[in-house]
Amino acid sequence: MKIPDFSPSFFIGKNSKDIISFGSGQPDLPPPKEVFQILHDYTSFKYGLIQGQDNLRQALSREYPGSTPDSFVVTNGASEALDLTLRSIARQKSSLPKKILLPRPYYYSYPFLVEFSGMTPVYTDLVKGKVDITDFEEKVKECRAILINSPSNPTGRIESIKTLKQIEKITEDLGVYVISDEVYKDLIYERENYLIHGPKVVTVNSFSKTFSMCGFRVGYLWSRDSDLVNDVIAMKTHCSMNTNILGQEMAFEATKVPKKFVSDQLEIWKERRDLIYQGLCDMGLQLWKPEGAFYVFPKVKNPKKTVWELYTKHKVITYLGDWFGAPGHIRLSYALDKEKIEQGLELLHTYLKG
Amino acid sequence: MKIPDFSPSFFIGKNSKDIISFGSGQPDLPPPKEVFQILHDYTSFKYGLIQGQDNLRQALSREYPGSTPDSFVVTNGASEALDLTLRSIARQKSSLPKKILLPRPYYYSYPFLVEFSGMTPVYTDLVKGKVDITDFEEKVKECRAILINSPSNPTGRIESIKTLKQIEKITEDLGVYVISDEVYKDLIYERENYLIHGPKVVTVNSFSKTFSMCGFRVGYLWSRDSDLVNDVIAMKTHCSMNTNILGQEMAFEATKVPKKFVSDQLEIWKERRDLIYQGLCDMGLQLWKPEGAFYVFPKVKNPKKTVWELYTKHKVITYLGDWFGAPGHIRLSYALDKEKIEQGLELLHTYLKG
Repeated sequence: MKIPDFSPSFFIGKNSKDIISFGSGQPDLPPPKEVFQILHDYTSFKYGLIQGQDNLRQALSREYPGSTPDSFVVTNGASEALDLTLRSIARQKSSLPKKILLPRPYYYSYPFLVEFSGMTPVYTDLVKGKVDITDFEEKVKECRAILINSPSNPTGRIESIKTLKQIEKITEDLGVYVISDEVYKDLIYERENYLIHGPKVVTVNSFSKTFSMCGFRVGYLWSRDSDLVNDVIAMKTHCSMNTNILGQEMAFEATKVPKKFVSDQLEIWKERRDLIYQGLCDMGLQLWKPEGAFYVFPKVKNPKKTVWELYTKHKVITYLGDWFGAPGHIRLSYALDKEKIEQGLELLHTYLKG
Repeated sequence: MKIPDFSPSFFIGKNSKDIISFGSGQPDLPPPKEVFQILHDYTSFKYGLIQGQDNLRQALSREYPGSTPDSFVVTNGASEALDLTLRSIARQKSSLPKKILLPRPYYYSYPFLVEFSGMTPVYTDLVKGKVDITDFEEKVKECRAILINSPSNPTGRIESIKTLKQIEKITEDLGVYVISDEVYKDLIYERENYLIHGPKVVTVNSFSKTFSMCGFRVGYLWSRDSDLVNDVIAMKTHCSMNTNILGQEMAFEATKVPKKFVSDQLEIWKERRDLIYQGLCDMGLQLWKPEGAFYVFPKVKNPKKTVWELYTKHKVITYLGDWFGAPGHIRLSYALDKEKIEQGLELLHTYLKG
């Protein structure tokens, strides 16, 4: 049977009860109950501030040392933060070429977003899921920005603090932007998050992963580069206006939730991580142990056939490594309960054996 | 006193009780109560379909003759629909130049959106607030798309059905896209809306004006050009993902509201239109009678000084015609109650006399 070309969108919306989905990076656990409580007597309906509501930006500024409410823009998810940041960087008068350095494997949207902005991706291949600083240093010289994602989707790896500090220094010396996609910053199993900082760092985050609020699409960016922040606001004025005001109020409620919510979730993710990591190792698959996020990225033979047949024959969704710039791998999200993970592993095992 | 340069964003968020704002195009009347009722027991939180929720697209397809749910994309307001449409058109392989024809005066975001997409605006000047079909026909030949807005923000004018049909024919013969921004289609005082149609028409609309849902940012586009629709979905997958799921559910509720809601609103707008139009005529100002939307666009002497001093001395907000490509004018939105309109007119009269 000929296997058609397919992309992640083939699987979107495929979530009936008889499917086991290791596909989308969509937490299964609900948001804190507090975010729904404000809905009961909600009545506002007017335009909000393009930059984001005051209360939310003030709450965010308390989370990020050295920041002010002025230095945030609330966006339609981290996606819009990345899109507007790249478009703004592309528009800048700069002697640096319109190239963006991407560690590979990368989150599958990155090359598209770079190209949509009129720039070109340049790749530095990760070694054992980590930045090779020598290759990085060589390639970053011809770039206008880097886009880094630690913890990483799809590898689940985090960069060492030493590497992150080297990246800070190298880019600052060159005047290169660092776009740091830290949407998994609260899902690290090994250490606290290290927040990359510097005059040309743009930190991108969202409420989707930490608070399971994917569908509400509330993200944000933060930067000390006020010219960039102001340009993003100017663009957003025309491209989408304010982010949904109700989503922002719900996000504000999330900022007030006790930290225990986040640490409890992390425990659940860690148990799942251990379960799926061990399960895949026991099958003899080669993979990195996830240090953050909720993805495993094993090597398999014939990955395209594997992904296709796992779905069509066993109703198990996995994602193809090629989409992340890593042929030879498949990605499994473990954002589902332990029972389903076990069932899915069994089906995967049966498939791989047979 | 030297008057600084300022843009609409200077006025955004300036809405204390002692200010009379003829500024933002923000309905003051609330949305139908039904859109808030679903909030009471709302619990969903997961990613939705990038293209938009099924129920909402099905409801929309019943409103647009000849459409199917597949031919809609639900977006973060009409703004994102315009942005993604222009970006998609800019990316197409086409022998037509990367130029977009804009009737002038235009909504102030249009030239920015065209430029952000990497294309160039070309202008056809309106005559008495209407398209001059001879000039249009001449200029459209060098363009890849036109972006038309009837009823118009800022003029309040509508194009005749005859002109709209001429535009359909001319553009179809040339293979030029028509992006028809019809966000004021339910606010026409003179006749029913005429829906421009054709194989390369992209109709843009939103829930913001008809249902006073500005802050929730739910808009959409509809087109028979399935390649364009699919490309917009592909771009949205990376640039913002689904539109806020709760906003979409609220919009779906709005589609079920009896038509009387819309016709009752139109009566209110018409009374206000008559009040402000007569008031400005009585002051001796020259202006077109609005046929739709909720803007008047009178000529004044020294418009920049007028707008600045009206605000700084009298706390009355108006918008500068220059922002809409029409020096010599100011724009007044009449999205506020009759009492405030009367107070504002009195202050304007006092200012202009003295």
